[in-house]
Amino acid sequence: MAIYQRVALIGLGLIASSMAHAMRQGGLAGEIVGHARSAETRAAALEIGICDRVFETAAEAVVGADLVVLAVPVGAMGEIAAEIAPHLAAGATVTDVGSVKQAVIAAVQPHIPEGVHFIPGHPLAGTEHSGPRSGFATLFRNRWWLLTPCEGADPGAVARLRSLLEAMGANVDTMDAPHHDLVLAVTSHTPHLIAYTMVGVADDLRRVTDSEVIRYSAAGFRDFTRIAASDPTMWRDVFLTNKEATLEILGRFTEELFALQRAIRLGDGDHLHEYFTRTRAIRRGIIEAGQDTAAPDFGRSSETATGPGPKAKG
Amino acid sequence: MAIYQRVALIGLGLIASSMAHAMRQGGLAGEIVGHARSAETRAAALEIGICDRVFETAAEAVVGADLVVLAVPVGAMGEIAAEIAPHLAAGATVTDVGSVKQAVIAAVQPHIPEGVHFIPGHPLAGTEHSGPRSGFATLFRNRWWLLTPCEGADPGAVARLRSLLEAMGANVDTMDAPHHDLVLAVTSHTPHLIAYTMVGVADDLRRVTDSEVIRYSAAGFRDFTRIAASDPTMWRDVFLTNKEATLEILGRFTEELFALQRAIRLGDGDHLHEYFTRTRAIRRGIIEAGQDTAAPDFGRSSETATGPGPKAKG
Repeated sequence: MAIYQRVALIGLGLIASSMAHAMRQGGLAGEIVGHARSAETRAAALEIGICDRVFETAAEAVVGADLVVLAVPVGAMGEIAAEIAPHLAAGATVTDVGSVKQAVIAAVQPHIPEGVHFIPGHPLAGTEHSGPRSGFATLFRNRWWLLTPCEGADPGAVARLRSLLEAMGANVDTMDAPHHDLVLAVTSHTPHLIAYTMVGVADDLRRVTDSEVIRYSAAGFRDFTRIAASDPTMWRDVFLTNKEATLEILGRFTEELFALQRAIRLGDGDHLHEYFTRTRAIRRGIIEAGQDTAAPDFGRSSETATGPGPKAKG
Repeated sequence: MAIYQRVALIGLGLIASSMAHAMRQGGLAGEIVGHARSAETRAAALEIGICDRVFETAAEAVVGADLVVLAVPVGAMGEIAAEIAPHLAAGATVTDVGSVKQAVIAAVQPHIPEGVHFIPGHPLAGTEHSGPRSGFATLFRNRWWLLTPCEGADPGAVARLRSLLEAMGANVDTMDAPHHDLVLAVTSHTPHLIAYTMVGVADDLRRVTDSEVIRYSAAGFRDFTRIAASDPTMWRDVFLTNKEATLEILGRFTEELFALQRAIRLGDGDHLHEYFTRTRAIRRGIIEAGQDTAAPDFGRSSETATGPGPKAKG
């Protein structure tokens, strides 16, 4: 049964198109309309069938929608909110899928009219691919979708949005926005920056190592390249808008890295061994929390069905 | 057909036990004997059937073997080589599976008697698990196995070892040891150190973030924990013995990281966007080189059969 009668997707990339597929599959939306700046993207959305109708402007797209999903880069949220505000239906819910929450709230909330519910959100799901053709219905299955409702948010509106997200397969949790931004700086933003950096270093060394960096990438580096292949615009905006928390975690990171670097230089094997033993425990916690399996095969399913995954050594 | 009549595995962890399984499956060894320091590991090896016989000392294990595989941490290679040297059969081949090659050669080569072939090697394969029960026959399938034969190595002995490795499913390549150590510092050693560091930082923050770091780890951090769960002793030895190359790459890494950190602090979005766009290309190279697929499912095979993998966003 449809949870919303008309859903307007503003931005038609990986997340929005996956939402459309999931809503279609579950019959969760009466009608799905959309807007993207690029005519090519709009045409693709119609062709694939993720939207029933598309509009050249976000303002037109939100008319009569009871759910509006802002699925554009974080840096573009404020401008879109200003544009759509006069056209939002009374009682409508506006949510977003941005990776940073404080900055989005600061940019969007002031534009939201009385009687419209703004409920910020963030699905912890994605792939290294982007664009309207990259979506698929099961993207959110068993993934977390964090909501950071502002004080005084309407409980009924939150419950309705939650039921949509759960119907798409997501596990929903709520927290306040500053806390969200700190947790994500640790679990996502800083790891991404580090992965980008390491891949950049390897790229610089290509002249020294020829194609060997790519050839022998299975030995750990490959996981970094996967992370570092994500959408550049989205990530630029994440770092610019979650600046404080990212710089704070980066500071701690370089401090610890220097301590390990010093241990290597001084040949302090005990320090290294102790550190590496401690980090093993957190991995076990993740497996126990059901966020990964002990025997994944990441990408080699046809080959390693009989054994644990190919996390490379050496 | 058996390529070696008697293979002696010194050290019975993930790599050695996987070799045993693969050799059994392919009928590649007449007999497999082994040694491990721990009585429990030796008993497990007999119980699982990866060894026909086990010995309390490495010296006893190598008697009459035409292939000896040193599968102990890099830091233990020299001592083992000294112990087994007087007991090696004339014409035998000794190889190792260490992640660093110059240090292993320096530690082992001086002990190798005239008439015995020492051919250093390094399989780029592994999992986050260790011990004799973690091995499986397909670990090396489609993975690189690098050989760094010393000048004047016997071509016949190298070809015979290569045929064994290929029969276990590996792709074999040869290079010189210093080059190996530099390439691996980029593709494996530095990424591992960085992953260990990031996981350590997250562990420190657990008090702030409660269990949320683990709960929401799918957003990038999970890949780091997988890398950082590898065997602490092995990795301690890697960093202590590939010190120069690792410190060199680490230096470049922190230099680049500081440049990105500065761009975040100054709000220089163009610098970030340009950097992130460049790193996307190296990922494409890896997919084209067949070292990964564009649509992996790393660990969610039952869920995402219809779409690309779950590399988490934001």
